[in-house]
Amino acid sequence: MTVLTQEKTAIQNNLPPSNSREKAREFVKTLQDQICQGLEAVDGKAKFHEDNWQREEGGGGRTRVISDGGVFEQGGVNFSEVWGDTLPPSILVQRPEAAGHGFYATGTSMVLHPKNPYVPTVHLNYRYFEAGPVWWFGGGADLTPYYGFEEDAIHFHQTLKQACDKHHPEYYPAFKRWCDEYFYLKHRQEARGIGGIFFDYLDDRGILYGGSDHNGLAHQYSEKVGQVSHSWEDLFNFAQSCGNAFLPSYIPIVERRNSMEYGDRERQFQLYRRGRYVEFNLVYDRGTIFGLQTNGRTESILMSLPPLTRWEYGYKPEAGSVEAKLTEYFLQSRDWA
Amino acid sequence: MTVLTQEKTAIQNNLPPSNSREKAREFVKTLQDQICQGLEAVDGKAKFHEDNWQREEGGGGRTRVISDGGVFEQGGVNFSEVWGDTLPPSILVQRPEAAGHGFYATGTSMVLHPKNPYVPTVHLNYRYFEAGPVWWFGGGADLTPYYGFEEDAIHFHQTLKQACDKHHPEYYPAFKRWCDEYFYLKHRQEARGIGGIFFDYLDDRGILYGGSDHNGLAHQYSEKVGQVSHSWEDLFNFAQSCGNAFLPSYIPIVERRNSMEYGDRERQFQLYRRGRYVEFNLVYDRGTIFGLQTNGRTESILMSLPPLTRWEYGYKPEAGSVEAKLTEYFLQSRDWA
Repeated sequence: MTVLTQEKTAIQNNLPPSNSREKAREFVKTLQDQICQGLEAVDGKAKFHEDNWQREEGGGGRTRVISDGGVFEQGGVNFSEVWGDTLPPSILVQRPEAAGHGFYATGTSMVLHPKNPYVPTVHLNYRYFEAGPVWWFGGGADLTPYYGFEEDAIHFHQTLKQACDKHHPEYYPAFKRWCDEYFYLKHRQEARGIGGIFFDYLDDRGILYGGSDHNGLAHQYSEKVGQVSHSWEDLFNFAQSCGNAFLPSYIPIVERRNSMEYGDRERQFQLYRRGRYVEFNLVYDRGTIFGLQTNGRTESILMSLPPLTRWEYGYKPEAGSVEAKLTEYFLQSRDWA
Repeated sequence: MTVLTQEKTAIQNNLPPSNSREKAREFVKTLQDQICQGLEAVDGKAKFHEDNWQREEGGGGRTRVISDGGVFEQGGVNFSEVWGDTLPPSILVQRPEAAGHGFYATGTSMVLHPKNPYVPTVHLNYRYFEAGPVWWFGGGADLTPYYGFEEDAIHFHQTLKQACDKHHPEYYPAFKRWCDEYFYLKHRQEARGIGGIFFDYLDDRGILYGGSDHNGLAHQYSEKVGQVSHSWEDLFNFAQSCGNAFLPSYIPIVERRNSMEYGDRERQFQLYRRGRYVEFNLVYDRGTIFGLQTNGRTESILMSLPPLTRWEYGYKPEAGSVEAKLTEYFLQSRDWA
């Protein structure tokens, strides 16, 4: 094999396979199925209600919602596959090479709001993009407890870390940090939760961490923590490992916490803290903002918002209380794994 | 008098008086006092709780909050007076002449969330800016009912129209239209409420209407409906007339509706519709977004959010119901006055 042939083979390895869209779609669609099955099993009472929808500009989706369950007060798992003539400007800023090309995007996203304040809210999203000469994977999962438990935070992070470590030792530390930076409410100077992993624009350039500007409106690569060059297949396998790690990362926490007794104090604190979730999703979350501003399916996008929420001017938990410990200890960036 | 002297006098008339800041501050501060007194009187149970705060970069404010009242479940009236070296970019886009100059801003803003679903939520804001060679007044008031009543909508608009008409016949139609355009949830294709009046950047150029891009992030003057050249004193008097019209526009509605009986159906609908208020304020409202992104006092800014809110995937009111009539009839742009 000549040097030229070797180089050519390496480049070809980094190109998506001819059936890349089908493979990515089947992955996220199957992920939706598996997650819904696992959640129904642990919920024990409610079933997902499914809405199929079409997008006028191209594509459509399968929105599944669960409510009034044994565990889940409200939640949704949304699969979508969309295509069109041009990506929104927000994405083109990150991927100028995609300008002037049509795009394809598929993904599954999920937010669950449990009834019991001891069971944490959880979010997951895995997605795949193609546009002209570029393609990338993005996604992650993160946990938002109302009452913190060390063993839950450790279990959640360790499960995700194991999924990452199978592919590269730099993945978990980079994507854990990115998650902490992304899910941050600047106006509250507070993390949304205890984190997890988050990655975006992951492709054969292998940039593991790009820094975040915390405002959700633009994302500039400001820093490179590491470079790990992987092929399309490698990254596809990695995204699958992450997706498959969700149920094992979350279900044991539900099983530990859902039977814990709670009263009005815990419920009121949960409703108050849910307000932070609303603030993050509507003020900072890229997917939400650009979905709303680019004629996305509003009901599927805002499925992430909680069933019941409250705001209270000037609320502060009592010093030394378990409620105070949430922000003072658990929502600080920590090495849980 | 020579032509030159006449011109000079006209220009001088349009300059702010030397005590413009004090006059504007006393107006909005007194407005806060008057409004709080009127609201406490109609509430009959709760009193405002006051927080005085300082802003590190210059200025401060007086936040007043009412909760668990006879009428008001939660609400706030906030006075602030701030100054600094430079206006945020969002405002400089509208007022490029202000670039490189220090600024002064004072205003009073208010949002009230009544308990009884038959009493509408209401918002008011009047403010004054100076920055180098430019100055302007902004503000307005708008009503957000959960259950629509023709006579309430007519009364609210007529009261504001009378306040406007004393100053110029073009004011009400221009500012009513601007209000309809500004308080619009593009992603829901819905008005936030039945409107009222809204104006911004009102100065001696006399541009009455500039068009809105509905996204709350930038506002470009795209259209001039009319030009009315008024002096600083004229516009100051106009803003005062508007401010003073608030209690007469709203209190009679509270008195008519607060004794109406309601049940869980009306309460649930109110909580659901409050979600729209949250969506508007966090996704579109300029004051909220830029307050949050420019290190404003978060608790005072988010005082506008409701005490209790709910989201429900895919909710639609029953066809022909009074709840359906809200969006189908009352939230359509109408000539109420």
